[in-house]
Amino acid sequence: MRLGTVRRNGTTQAFRQENGATTFLPAKDVGELLLREDWRTLAGEAGQEPAAADLDTPILRPGKILCAGLNYYAHAEEVGQDVPKHPTIFTKMHNALVGPSDDVQMPEASRKIDWEAELTIVIGKTIRKVDEAAAKDAILGYTVMNDVSVRDWQGRTSEWFQGKNWDRMTPVGPVVVTADEIDPEDGLAVECELDGVVKQSGTTSDLIFSCAKLVSYISEFMTLEPGDIIATGTPAGVGLARKPREWIPVGAELVTRIEGIGELRNKCVAEPAAG
Amino acid sequence: MRLGTVRRNGTTQAFRQENGATTFLPAKDVGELLLREDWRTLAGEAGQEPAAADLDTPILRPGKILCAGLNYYAHAEEVGQDVPKHPTIFTKMHNALVGPSDDVQMPEASRKIDWEAELTIVIGKTIRKVDEAAAKDAILGYTVMNDVSVRDWQGRTSEWFQGKNWDRMTPVGPVVVTADEIDPEDGLAVECELDGVVKQSGTTSDLIFSCAKLVSYISEFMTLEPGDIIATGTPAGVGLARKPREWIPVGAELVTRIEGIGELRNKCVAEPAAG
Repeated sequence: MRLGTVRRNGTTQAFRQENGATTFLPAKDVGELLLREDWRTLAGEAGQEPAAADLDTPILRPGKILCAGLNYYAHAEEVGQDVPKHPTIFTKMHNALVGPSDDVQMPEASRKIDWEAELTIVIGKTIRKVDEAAAKDAILGYTVMNDVSVRDWQGRTSEWFQGKNWDRMTPVGPVVVTADEIDPEDGLAVECELDGVVKQSGTTSDLIFSCAKLVSYISEFMTLEPGDIIATGTPAGVGLARKPREWIPVGAELVTRIEGIGELRNKCVAEPAAG
Repeated sequence: MRLGTVRRNGTTQAFRQENGATTFLPAKDVGELLLREDWRTLAGEAGQEPAAADLDTPILRPGKILCAGLNYYAHAEEVGQDVPKHPTIFTKMHNALVGPSDDVQMPEASRKIDWEAELTIVIGKTIRKVDEAAAKDAILGYTVMNDVSVRDWQGRTSEWFQGKNWDRMTPVGPVVVTADEIDPEDGLAVECELDGVVKQSGTTSDLIFSCAKLVSYISEFMTLEPGDIIATGTPAGVGLARKPREWIPVGAELVTRIEGIGELRNKCVAEPAAG
């Protein structure tokens, strides 16, 4: 099953896809849909599959947007870090999100903008202090994020937040695929292309901390709730680690693709002068 | 003017205080109240000032809870850091918040729990890329936070998030005092007491980055919106920097006080076994 959010009739609306059929549902986005117990069976209006260009990010305003850092062996190595003992967790805020075909806004204040393709967990249950089996059971599904990063601001202080939270710079989507259809432990291909050139080509088999482990770890200290999302880190191949370093040029097309889910396809454009 | 949220009639309700009079307003908390243009004059029901024990945290679910680190000269020095060139910004999530008289939950997983009294900004306008004058104008008022921190988890990775986001560990309140009544640039006393012993006694005159500077800096990369809150960092005297180190014992009473706003008074109790 796939869940998404489409821009339609001047507003947004959640939809569900199963066995090739699309049903538009009475919820403004997947976030609102998941607050209902009956989201799998809720009646709606049958329709055509939405065009990619009409999709919004599935959850417009997640309760939490958590991100794991340094979670692929080859990526930790390329940035000169030891294999970590504990997951590194940081956050994004809703203002950073854009849809799967939207423009990514490139700031005037930096040109050191980097790509980070990431498998992203969507939480389906309220949990606290759960083991890995219960954590896996609380994963509703998966989507795709590109954790586009402003590297000079990220490195200004120990805390990466200010390099990760520029307005409208983080595409997430195109849809949420439920966990009964794909399993990252089977090894899903994670790819990032910049203007048609493959920059990252990894597999979720190389995650240091599995999705279940990440969810269990976070649940040790905080309650996770339906609609919370957790980006699981990026594989090797980021611009920061290349010699020479590479950054996203204004005007580039950034494609982020995960096997079994779909792709983000975003043009990277200069942000409006007025901010 | 003071704004707060009280637990009343089985739910929560915003209230406004001016010239000694309390008015209960048609909004579930200060966050919902601030979405209205007319919050300063909105009609309500006159009543008695709520008891401290009945107060909830003013904004139950802020759109963003941002925190500045290393923002007092003496605190940066006591933890061995140079005076920073840029503000350090990290975040909390709503699950961490408790009200001004609520129990602070002490986790089983750590006993290295520390105090951090912090003046906290409440944003009143939607802003992006504003200078310090416009940033100051966007500050609706101020409240008090104790950024209670789990030091061993905070230090597990470069990112402090997992030491700062334990459920129900961060008291915020008791009310929001509007910016026409107090100005941190005048030097407000910031104090923290543990079981009646003063542990922190600072003044907002010693902030490295002023409130206006912090808001302007953050607005360079992200939109700030009404109800967003920004804790401005803690003065010297934290347990981590004491010799020997000191931590909050289970059962302690933690008092956090800022001149012109009021105080948080929280009992620190073991969290329920079920989490």
